[in-house]
Amino acid sequence: MQNFIYHTPTKVFFGKDTHKNVGEIIRNYGYKKIMMQYGKSSIKKSGLYDEVVKSLRENNIEFVEMGGVEPNPRLSFVYDAIKVAREEKVEFILAVGGGSVIDSCKVTALGVKYDGDVWDFPAKKATPKDALPVGCILTISAAGSEMSQSAVISNTDIKEKRGCGTEFNRCKFAILNPELTYSVSQYQTACGIVDMMTHTMERYFYPVDPTPLTDSISEALLKNIIKSSKVVMTNPSDYEARANLMWASSLCHNDLTGCGRAHALAVHQLEHALSGEHEDVPHGAGLALLYPKWAKYVYKYDIPRFAQFARNVWDVENTDDEKAALEGILKMEEFFKSIGMPCFLSDFDIPDTPSEVYADLCTYSRTRTIPSVIELGYDQIKDIFDMCV
Amino acid sequence: MQNFIYHTPTKVFFGKDTHKNVGEIIRNYGYKKIMMQYGKSSIKKSGLYDEVVKSLRENNIEFVEMGGVEPNPRLSFVYDAIKVAREEKVEFILAVGGGSVIDSCKVTALGVKYDGDVWDFPAKKATPKDALPVGCILTISAAGSEMSQSAVISNTDIKEKRGCGTEFNRCKFAILNPELTYSVSQYQTACGIVDMMTHTMERYFYPVDPTPLTDSISEALLKNIIKSSKVVMTNPSDYEARANLMWASSLCHNDLTGCGRAHALAVHQLEHALSGEHEDVPHGAGLALLYPKWAKYVYKYDIPRFAQFARNVWDVENTDDEKAALEGILKMEEFFKSIGMPCFLSDFDIPDTPSEVYADLCTYSRTRTIPSVIELGYDQIKDIFDMCV
Repeated sequence: MQNFIYHTPTKVFFGKDTHKNVGEIIRNYGYKKIMMQYGKSSIKKSGLYDEVVKSLRENNIEFVEMGGVEPNPRLSFVYDAIKVAREEKVEFILAVGGGSVIDSCKVTALGVKYDGDVWDFPAKKATPKDALPVGCILTISAAGSEMSQSAVISNTDIKEKRGCGTEFNRCKFAILNPELTYSVSQYQTACGIVDMMTHTMERYFYPVDPTPLTDSISEALLKNIIKSSKVVMTNPSDYEARANLMWASSLCHNDLTGCGRAHALAVHQLEHALSGEHEDVPHGAGLALLYPKWAKYVYKYDIPRFAQFARNVWDVENTDDEKAALEGILKMEEFFKSIGMPCFLSDFDIPDTPSEVYADLCTYSRTRTIPSVIELGYDQIKDIFDMCV
Repeated sequence: MQNFIYHTPTKVFFGKDTHKNVGEIIRNYGYKKIMMQYGKSSIKKSGLYDEVVKSLRENNIEFVEMGGVEPNPRLSFVYDAIKVAREEKVEFILAVGGGSVIDSCKVTALGVKYDGDVWDFPAKKATPKDALPVGCILTISAAGSEMSQSAVISNTDIKEKRGCGTEFNRCKFAILNPELTYSVSQYQTACGIVDMMTHTMERYFYPVDPTPLTDSISEALLKNIIKSSKVVMTNPSDYEARANLMWASSLCHNDLTGCGRAHALAVHQLEHALSGEHEDVPHGAGLALLYPKWAKYVYKYDIPRFAQFARNVWDVENTDDEKAALEGILKMEEFFKSIGMPCFLSDFDIPDTPSEVYADLCTYSRTRTIPSVIELGYDQIKDIFDMCV
């Protein structure tokens, strides 16, 4: 077990009707003027917008709105939000939405407190030193951004999607009401399921010394996600299954499943190239395509680990390690397919793109490699994308 | 799944040599004058005291010392500590020790910021509104106080040992170096194992709607504790097993295993009567005696739950629920015995005490009952203590 720091200060308000207390929660922190960011029209259609506004008004919280955050949130939107947040002197940023909205808020919050270009942070030209506080009302179980230190932002001008992790990104609070996810489409629900699973799997497969306790917790999470996924695919309003998925999405990315381990979110980097190049590829769908291909490419370098995964997560009984390992990967791929996820690049409505393009994007033009079960350089990444055709 | 609030702001520094950074950690928080509390002479013998003092001095942290915290920490000591902390105007309290030292610091921290008698809090005559910040260097895996909102204090004048839970009790940081637990005796290690297990088991058995995700995490923790326990009993310096136990002790009581559930730590209340009456009964040993007796007394009121526990934690294969349930309880009792824990009151070196005395203490002279699988009143508690003879 490696040394680690574990710090998850986000206060979670979990359960039915919890979003109705958002104004009181913010008031208790002492914030009086806030920015609220959200996506397209869905929170207005569902009535969530009205309930949030009502609670804010009842608690005398003044707010400015920035609606229209897009999936794979855009740097250009963040620039606008930073300008407004400064002009309006907001003290706090509230995200009402999923991972994209939360990440947009996180990067805005970093930008408000930074004199330079906020892209300096994902571009690794500068390190955050401060940020406005952020909180969220989560509407989709997926990214885990509600408790994580991650944020991902797309710079569409240069077609780059980059992560920007910092402890300043931890939400002050996260309001998790599973009922708010009832209206998430089957496809988006499936994308979220893949996203949360891979957050734990990326940590699970990073090669380090044994961490049996973290392993068991990870396996417990994955098994529960798989079980609940099957329920919500047929009954999207099953509270218990939606609640399991929502809490699992947070635990899969708040670092609990990384304790004592190292991780690099390798396949996430590959996927960022895909959805960076094709803005409308949902992150989770990209992961569902890439993760099994990556696993097939690397499993032979850590057969015992993939065998453990197969047996403890997918109930594979094969006593031969290599056969079990492969069986587990196939079961994962089948599961992703069963919830409507893509298996090949041709399943997306995107133009043919040479694998070289993705390999170049992933490696920042051959200037980096990505650690995983094996080090992934340009050639390896090209090979994996070739397997997706 | 019930609604819940989950908030574990404690920053954990886990691993080898982490205690050597304590001065830097405290300096980074901005505290310049602190109180350090510790127990008897063990931290001086082991060299830990010198290492802590060195790190504090190197970082220009001024400190006052209060050594001599006793197991089942005493209110009288806390009174003295409050006085010193006020006179010396300390900004922060550092616990170097186990749960007793941490709890002593927590209650001191509450008392410093309260004008009345700090016993008002455990006596439920007042609610904490503020506290000095507390941090810890943990030296025994047991109480989970390093991440919990609990504190327990003994008022020896009236022979009462009471809990005093509040969010103000959460440590700012917890330094967890498993190597510091190598020197814990086999008996004290076993007491700690029982303590941490029961923190999760008390939550697990509280009767509420299903929480499959929390259940799986709880079962994963318990199985890992049992496995690591067997290792440390023969090899007390096995880093990985000590590390598993240390991290498990924190996760068992930081509320992770209570998410979506309710709990009352019922058997803990029974044990507090025992070690409240007989100060030298170690808390964990008292729990090892009482927990299986309690389980035998109540299991028939929730057979499916005890059967699940038996199968998922103790690998019981019996397909008959009631038989499986009983088998699980017996396996737990055997396990406690196998690590040297008592099975009867006569295993302790304490005077014979009528069960009525414990029942009276537990119920605060028949003025309360304790919720658990069934409500425990005076008569039920007396019955359970009778089973211990």
